[in-house]
Amino acid sequence: MHDPLNAFCAHSTARLQGAPAGPLAGLTFAAKDLFDIAGHVTGAGNPDWLALNAPAERTARVVQALVDAGATMVGKTHTDELSRGIFGENAHYGTPTNPKAPGRVPGGSSSGSAAAVAGGLVDFALGTDTGGSVRIPASFCGIFGIRPTRARVSLAGVVGQAPSFDTVGWFARDAHLLARIGEVLLATDLGSAPHPRRAIIATDAFAIADPATANALLPVAERIAALIGSCEKRALSQTVPLAEWFAHQRAVQGREAWATFGDWIDRYNPRFGFEISDNFLRGMRVDDTALAAGRQFQAARRAELTQTLAADTIVLLPTAPFPAPLLGQRRSATWASRTAISTLTTICGTLGAPQLNLPLAQVDGLPVGLSIMARPGGDEMLLAFALHTSP
Amino acid sequence: MHDPLNAFCAHSTARLQGAPAGPLAGLTFAAKDLFDIAGHVTGAGNPDWLALNAPAERTARVVQALVDAGATMVGKTHTDELSRGIFGENAHYGTPTNPKAPGRVPGGSSSGSAAAVAGGLVDFALGTDTGGSVRIPASFCGIFGIRPTRARVSLAGVVGQAPSFDTVGWFARDAHLLARIGEVLLATDLGSAPHPRRAIIATDAFAIADPATANALLPVAERIAALIGSCEKRALSQTVPLAEWFAHQRAVQGREAWATFGDWIDRYNPRFGFEISDNFLRGMRVDDTALAAGRQFQAARRAELTQTLAADTIVLLPTAPFPAPLLGQRRSATWASRTAISTLTTICGTLGAPQLNLPLAQVDGLPVGLSIMARPGGDEMLLAFALHTSP
Repeated sequence: MHDPLNAFCAHSTARLQGAPAGPLAGLTFAAKDLFDIAGHVTGAGNPDWLALNAPAERTARVVQALVDAGATMVGKTHTDELSRGIFGENAHYGTPTNPKAPGRVPGGSSSGSAAAVAGGLVDFALGTDTGGSVRIPASFCGIFGIRPTRARVSLAGVVGQAPSFDTVGWFARDAHLLARIGEVLLATDLGSAPHPRRAIIATDAFAIADPATANALLPVAERIAALIGSCEKRALSQTVPLAEWFAHQRAVQGREAWATFGDWIDRYNPRFGFEISDNFLRGMRVDDTALAAGRQFQAARRAELTQTLAADTIVLLPTAPFPAPLLGQRRSATWASRTAISTLTTICGTLGAPQLNLPLAQVDGLPVGLSIMARPGGDEMLLAFALHTSP
Repeated sequence: MHDPLNAFCAHSTARLQGAPAGPLAGLTFAAKDLFDIAGHVTGAGNPDWLALNAPAERTARVVQALVDAGATMVGKTHTDELSRGIFGENAHYGTPTNPKAPGRVPGGSSSGSAAAVAGGLVDFALGTDTGGSVRIPASFCGIFGIRPTRARVSLAGVVGQAPSFDTVGWFARDAHLLARIGEVLLATDLGSAPHPRRAIIATDAFAIADPATANALLPVAERIAALIGSCEKRALSQTVPLAEWFAHQRAVQGREAWATFGDWIDRYNPRFGFEISDNFLRGMRVDDTALAAGRQFQAARRAELTQTLAADTIVLLPTAPFPAPLLGQRRSATWASRTAISTLTTICGTLGAPQLNLPLAQVDGLPVGLSIMARPGGDEMLLAFALHTSP
């Protein structure tokens, strides 16, 4: 395949012909290089992972489900190393091009999947989202993307990172295709999906966005809230600031990521971009007390949500606090950006709640996404409602 | 050149023909890939350093001095990344073979230089020693090697790491050649070198070595002390344990290494073996208080040495606490080994004193080196005395 975007892994020739009939017949898709394809080594964005692992014995369950539904998988896409990045700048394989924001990062870690969809190389693509890895590239690349409710979509055959947060998500250029894929992967019929009856514009989340981004997204949020009818503007987190959510998620996610990969790292001393090692080492140093505090915090937020957010409610928030940053910034600069980004993505990460990016605004010609989120289990409501949101 | 040991950098073709006459005429040597050669990029053991730096404008002063003295430089040798390693296992370029200890590391960071000398690919080689990078591979590979007094040999045109500790050193298979190189690089005549009159067997240093290594080295040390005449067995450090020396050196060296490379790392987010990133991050986190305490500690030890160690005294100590470790160990295991190694190498590192490895013993057929050290400025005494130490 001609790949002008550096979206696809050069080391992988994995291709799976879709079944001749099915709801997704005739469509093409790509899978982030964390999804196993039988007979191929899953590379996970790192050359030492690629070199040291054997070919997968089975194809990831979601990939097989899509192929069985008629879609043809045409390739594996680039990812940040072991899914530990949010910008998509892979130190080994380069950065996929962001077709909607030249000279800027595509976002990550599902960088190649987002680039391939945004650039029209495939109809849709699979990603994973632990700390924002579907939502952020969807926002930066100006496409639809969903992080579903945690544990609704199988992670079998997927290289996981932090089990409390890992999810499989997907990207498409329009809400209709996003929904059709959802019907396959959630094994659901969106015709019977509930309609939202209340909207909340999350003021605490909007406060994290840069003013230009917040100003671009707020009218869109108000228009969408008007479609629902009842609208409230209030802080989503009424007891503790979102910065505290992020601090706890970072501790738990980091420690879990070290539990996932630490033994392999210890055994093989693999090569990483410096920032990836820094991420892992921060996680390694999270102690049991911080881990326990993080888990307790997460449980408290989930309990609180059950009380404060009704099943028929959609929350509107910025997906990312700004458009895609410039390529090749200093890591000290990206580190600061990452904190703001993750303070937004931590909301649904902590809650295990679904979140869907609507690519409905721009800042200086660059995409910025508005997110709709719901209580865990509200995936169908989000996917069905997204069909009505385009102006 | 045929390089069965993976001692030489594949990316470098640097070669400098020696002057037709001179004290080193007809000899060949190699230089660690930290030494600049005009017109060639210095790679420093890291592919991103290699890719991001321009060719050197000038040849390192010591290399030029050797070439002017008649020696021909035949190639650049592998090093641990940016000289930050002690085992010689480079995650990008592989590990040079230790010809004297198959299946074991050559030691580093001057790994390729030691391997090339031990394997007879060159007559001698240049290395650098900040925290043991000449002494340890000399011990592991069973060859002579010297770390001279700090600032006696020019570092011009050499990629430095931590200015308080950096030195240029060299390796040879016999003491005579080691001395001839010393006459060129120290601009001295060893015929007038002083003879040692007192020997100290450093019991605190011997206590750090594994019992088998200490048992193999002690008779050699006693034989050598007998050559000198007066011999005392006592702790070298009479006020604070050597472990404390190491803690301070690690802090100061780490912080200085971050000062040297941190801006480049921040700008380019380069790829490193995980352990190298860990080293840099530990240095990055050393605060000003720890740095000041380390510098004060170092000054105190130097002052103490001036009072307790006479200019005519040679101290005998194990170069490394054990023979070369097995290749490919877990980094948690190498980390523990590194602490023991560095507790020995920190002595001359802290003092800025010269130390010379004598490859005079074995443990289970593997080389273990005995070191002779002296006060700063005692290089000539060590080089001249080494000529008399072979049994």
